[in-house]
Amino acid sequence: MSDASRPIAILGGTGPAGMGIALRWARAGETIIIGSRDAHRAQETADKIKERAGNQTRISGMDNAAACAAANTLVLTVPFESQAALLKQLKPAIRSGSILIDATVALAASVGGRASRTLGVWQGSSAQQAAELVPKGVNVVAAFHNLSAELLDGDDALDCDVIVCGDDPDASQIVRKLAAKIPGVRAIDGGKLENARILEQMTALLIGLNTRHKGHGGIRITGLPPQAYE
Amino acid sequence: MSDASRPIAILGGTGPAGMGIALRWARAGETIIIGSRDAHRAQETADKIKERAGNQTRISGMDNAAACAAANTLVLTVPFESQAALLKQLKPAIRSGSILIDATVALAASVGGRASRTLGVWQGSSAQQAAELVPKGVNVVAAFHNLSAELLDGDDALDCDVIVCGDDPDASQIVRKLAAKIPGVRAIDGGKLENARILEQMTALLIGLNTRHKGHGGIRITGLPPQAYE
Repeated sequence: MSDASRPIAILGGTGPAGMGIALRWARAGETIIIGSRDAHRAQETADKIKERAGNQTRISGMDNAAACAAANTLVLTVPFESQAALLKQLKPAIRSGSILIDATVALAASVGGRASRTLGVWQGSSAQQAAELVPKGVNVVAAFHNLSAELLDGDDALDCDVIVCGDDPDASQIVRKLAAKIPGVRAIDGGKLENARILEQMTALLIGLNTRHKGHGGIRITGLPPQAYE
Repeated sequence: MSDASRPIAILGGTGPAGMGIALRWARAGETIIIGSRDAHRAQETADKIKERAGNQTRISGMDNAAACAAANTLVLTVPFESQAALLKQLKPAIRSGSILIDATVALAASVGGRASRTLGVWQGSSAQQAAELVPKGVNVVAAFHNLSAELLDGDDALDCDVIVCGDDPDASQIVRKLAAKIPGVRAIDGGKLENARILEQMTALLIGLNTRHKGHGGIRITGLPPQAYE
């Protein structure tokens, strides 16, 4: 189960979404490892987060492979065009039994198109592509697609729900509990990993709404009974 | 522009979603025509709604073709498997300059699959298929996919936003104003009709959440400035 003794590695954690999640979880008492291609840059980002979250914060920076080896909850917050290559490269470093939280979205921007449109992914979704690329015994869980990186990387509570999709119920539950540690976030079980395709599409819609209306759009799911929300 | 002198025809309006929308708009003072294959059944449904919404309510029932001829705002709330055949049949009856509001979703249930999964539609979405089938000069606007039929067909305010997508800005705005007449609903401009594919996917996700959590799920979009909401 999720506990503070189990470090969480944020792969590609020097980008705004990764930094924002790291900041929120560091504040909540989780042990965080920022992963990056460049260990030095990872350490710089970790230092910046420590400065904001307080000196008691447990956060360090490493290259992505070292981060995988040191953690068993991994979060992937890289652009879609980097996802497959990074997972292939990290495959030997990812520990069996790990959870890989995939937050990538196959935006058309990955191939020079618009961020408000998506690419079709053969496997059905970016998360399902990730599931094909991780070592056996690693559970991929899709989540965090629809949180604004700008708002995450701030100090206010969010006004968003996180829908969590995955094929392993225990792994999904761990991720829901982690999501609910972000102030203002409620986590909802969204069923199997195949449903990630819809979460990913919703990101493109929100990006379009943000451009059109100049905001930082998020979603709340209404109308479910209280026990549906973590 | 939308005004009460311009009747709104709800095609396939004897189903729960159509009845619910009709009820809400009738209460808001709109003139409603229930359309159905069977004029007698349409009239019965109109009478039922009148009973609930009050005797001053302007609502009548006709067969679908007569309803099209008598209105210039049309709402399509039929199952996806009936959409193309119905639009082909009604093509001669639909008046040029009409707005067709498409709320259909290509659920896999249309071909015996699950209602929490969708079919791929060649044109990109059910709404874009509709746009191909209507006469020239008719603007298709996608909306109302994500409102629970059960909640619509009740008396309480909804806790849902309606994202409206369409290629004609004036038609989209008329539909946003109509959406905002449903108590509790805020309407949001979601851009071009092609974005309907995402709204349609979201319905499948909500259906899955409803099954999993036993609720009547809806969505709210957070984080946009006040002027984004109608």
